[in-house]
Amino acid sequence: MKFAEMTVAQFLEKLASPDPTPGGGTAAAVAGAMGTGLLIMVTGLAKSNTNSDAEKAALAAARQALQPLIPALADLADADAAAFDQVMSAYRLPKATDDDKTARSAAIQAALQGATTVPLQTLRACAAAMAHVETVAASGNRSAVSDVGVAIGLLEAAAAGAEANVRINLASVRDPQFTSAAGDEMGRLISEVTRQAATARSRLA
Amino acid sequence: MKFAEMTVAQFLEKLASPDPTPGGGTAAAVAGAMGTGLLIMVTGLAKSNTNSDAEKAALAAARQALQPLIPALADLADADAAAFDQVMSAYRLPKATDDDKTARSAAIQAALQGATTVPLQTLRACAAAMAHVETVAASGNRSAVSDVGVAIGLLEAAAAGAEANVRINLASVRDPQFTSAAGDEMGRLISEVTRQAATARSRLA
Repeated sequence: MKFAEMTVAQFLEKLASPDPTPGGGTAAAVAGAMGTGLLIMVTGLAKSNTNSDAEKAALAAARQALQPLIPALADLADADAAAFDQVMSAYRLPKATDDDKTARSAAIQAALQGATTVPLQTLRACAAAMAHVETVAASGNRSAVSDVGVAIGLLEAAAAGAEANVRINLASVRDPQFTSAAGDEMGRLISEVTRQAATARSRLA
Repeated sequence: MKFAEMTVAQFLEKLASPDPTPGGGTAAAVAGAMGTGLLIMVTGLAKSNTNSDAEKAALAAARQALQPLIPALADLADADAAAFDQVMSAYRLPKATDDDKTARSAAIQAALQGATTVPLQTLRACAAAMAHVETVAASGNRSAVSDVGVAIGLLEAAAAGAEANVRINLASVRDPQFTSAAGDEMGRLISEVTRQAATARSRLA
């Protein structure tokens, strides 16, 4: 069953269970979806009469860009658990012969790259949502200022959580090209998230 | 329907809808429950052979203290939406006569105190969860280090979100005793959350 199809209570129970999945990567993706949901809510709460046509158009554009990020992050919540399970399975492969060892090592490396790529995608989705937070903060209804603040906090926590999961898996990846490309993108995305969050917070103050 | 009984997808849709509830206060409570869930998971992932009896007992005690916080935060998610709806209803009361105005003003003040108390309770629950994060970080399985990191980030975001909701409602409360007591408690809890998070993060490094 997909996490999105579970009740919130069931999902919380799954997180709390001692099974390693769902873990932090899944929780980060869901937190990102929650932050995105709050931003979408505020795009629907225009300042009514005082919003200019340009502001209304900006909120509508933000809304349209944000909407697909919710199902994307929900899918990443599942993909994160699947990628981690893949890593665990690879580590359990036989290592009796040299051929076993080679095959196991290749499977582990492939699985680790998968377990790096998924949280990197989560980080990308959080950065994509955060790219609209300034517009939402500037043109959304002032009564929703605390909702935008919570959205920023959740997206930052989600992005940091995704980053932690990229880092921990990337540390064991042995392909230098993959490592450097993923590390570079991670760094760029995190800087971008931090910058956007600070700009949007200054709009809320 | 309680939020905990909705599917994750339905809950995300509710957050994204332009209705003002559920909003940031509800999202903060659910994020706090997710962070707490991750901590509970790690209390179930002892370092096995290397855990001393004292460490095992500490993890078991943390687990027992953390478990009731999940249903408590799930209830606060609902209570937050209800308290906000109450404020909206009070503002919609008639204000034709002086008697109307007096009654309306009293209803608004009572509702605002409720809408302050609920996120204050959310903040208390997040601080209560965060009080165990150092134990979990120190004695939990090292393989779950990123899960503890995500839990800390979610609890911080939840606490900050709850704080924002306390502040925004407290600003309109006119009872100086209530304002000062709630403001003081909010400040103490946030300092405590910040301190515990920093200590636990140093254990993870």
